[in-house]
Amino acid sequence: MPEFDFINWIRAQQTLSDLVPLPAGDDMAVVRWPADLLLVGVDQVLDGVHFDSSQHSPHDIGRKAMNRNLSDCAAMACLPVAAVATVALPHGRGIEYAKQLYVGMRAAGEAFDCRLVGGDTGSWPGPLALTVTILGRADGVEPIRRSGAMAGDGIYVTGALGGSLLGRHMSFTPRVHEARTLARSSIITAMIDLSDGLSRDLRHICHESGIGVRLSSRSIPIHHDAITLSRRSGKPAIEHALHDGEDYELLFTASAPPPIGQRIGTITAGRDIVDIDGQTSLDARGWEHTL
Amino acid sequence: MPEFDFINWIRAQQTLSDLVPLPAGDDMAVVRWPADLLLVGVDQVLDGVHFDSSQHSPHDIGRKAMNRNLSDCAAMACLPVAAVATVALPHGRGIEYAKQLYVGMRAAGEAFDCRLVGGDTGSWPGPLALTVTILGRADGVEPIRRSGAMAGDGIYVTGALGGSLLGRHMSFTPRVHEARTLARSSIITAMIDLSDGLSRDLRHICHESGIGVRLSSRSIPIHHDAITLSRRSGKPAIEHALHDGEDYELLFTASAPPPIGQRIGTITAGRDIVDIDGQTSLDARGWEHTL
Repeated sequence: MPEFDFINWIRAQQTLSDLVPLPAGDDMAVVRWPADLLLVGVDQVLDGVHFDSSQHSPHDIGRKAMNRNLSDCAAMACLPVAAVATVALPHGRGIEYAKQLYVGMRAAGEAFDCRLVGGDTGSWPGPLALTVTILGRADGVEPIRRSGAMAGDGIYVTGALGGSLLGRHMSFTPRVHEARTLARSSIITAMIDLSDGLSRDLRHICHESGIGVRLSSRSIPIHHDAITLSRRSGKPAIEHALHDGEDYELLFTASAPPPIGQRIGTITAGRDIVDIDGQTSLDARGWEHTL
Repeated sequence: MPEFDFINWIRAQQTLSDLVPLPAGDDMAVVRWPADLLLVGVDQVLDGVHFDSSQHSPHDIGRKAMNRNLSDCAAMACLPVAAVATVALPHGRGIEYAKQLYVGMRAAGEAFDCRLVGGDTGSWPGPLALTVTILGRADGVEPIRRSGAMAGDGIYVTGALGGSLLGRHMSFTPRVHEARTLARSSIITAMIDLSDGLSRDLRHICHESGIGVRLSSRSIPIHHDAITLSRRSGKPAIEHALHDGEDYELLFTASAPPPIGQRIGTITAGRDIVDIDGQTSLDARGWEHTL
């Protein structure tokens, strides 16, 4: 399929609006941005790292690419507005495949009123790689950072953790609405979305806020997927809940009891993460990616 | 090198400003966007397609990734403001390599006061892939689209074309300032940057504007690289100027003589591209990418 036809197809998918007054087809998309703080994030999903194109459908791959970015919006408590995407398509993968990636991305965005306004699709000899760049606005809610946690704050998660590799990592719902609700309560001091795993993302908050955590590992909500996986792996389910990653729940700290969330510990003035239940040793192992 | 150290290194490179009030380290970058039209574009550069990592330095690869996006800003005549980037780094390529990519991108952006405010770096088993997403603002100049060319307009280019593969495709200067000068003259009706080659980018303007072109191929400024390359390829230099691509000059139409640019033809009401000098046959061959 020639590129012109693909652009015409994309154009036919678009609906114009006050926000996006012009159809696709130029070198950049034009967005009527309201006078507001702009938040911008970008995230890539790579074949063999974040998905497996021999197992996952292009629609689900596209959805994950968008949802990971929506989850970043949740982490900052901003309102998703618009997104652009790139697709590096392996030679011969074909136009129907590219369309399904697009449809998956677009549908995931539209579930949160976030419009896919532009992008760049090209083919190459490498594996499938997608990126989504997302633009959000504060819309009356101050962005929540990783660096605001204070000694004495409670630390919370929005849902059950572990074992997402069984399928949830492809089909999660980004916690955009929950994040907005939390941030409006004005008691949230730090927040992050759980993409790297509780142990590691906790470490990010400790690092950025300069604090430590007294963790109650028995309070961590364990997903039934973590229990299923623990039967296969022989590791305790709590280890899956702590380290698996890709939960896409929110991890946050609050100066008073929040409207939603399960408390899993308390922020301390030290720099260590200590499990008061003594179930698990939370040293630095496995917490850091290397490049 | 652990990821924390890489983020700390990037943070040390950043200077905070009114525009970018917060350091790197959160899930998204925060930008104080002025009340203005926002233009957003994204472009990927892929190993083996847009560069060759066995030949080109990471600094030059990073520069090209940013400059292609700045060239998109030029095409729309907007003012580049901020950018975010992704890098998919082949396993084992190492942190110094990633830093050089970053330095190349950042320096290219800063040459046009465009700040690299965020990104995502990950390693994978695939080849090197970079994306840059760029945010621009109108800043008092209406965006120029591909669709505004009218019969009777002149058609122009900002510089000599062809043979960029000899090296210019890695080291071009995006025509941001020229574009702003042109757009301020209020006589520019359509514009595009020459990335796919004159014949093909001309076709984009014809397609979007619903017009044709009487081209004077003898008026096309031919780059000395095209002449050098024609000695090797045995093809006439004009063929290189017409079809090579990656010139990153501007191709634009104007209703009156513009302050800069070389006239190469006239817009017609038909749909054909006709070379009045009879040097070359401009049929549709080679104009369309396929996916």
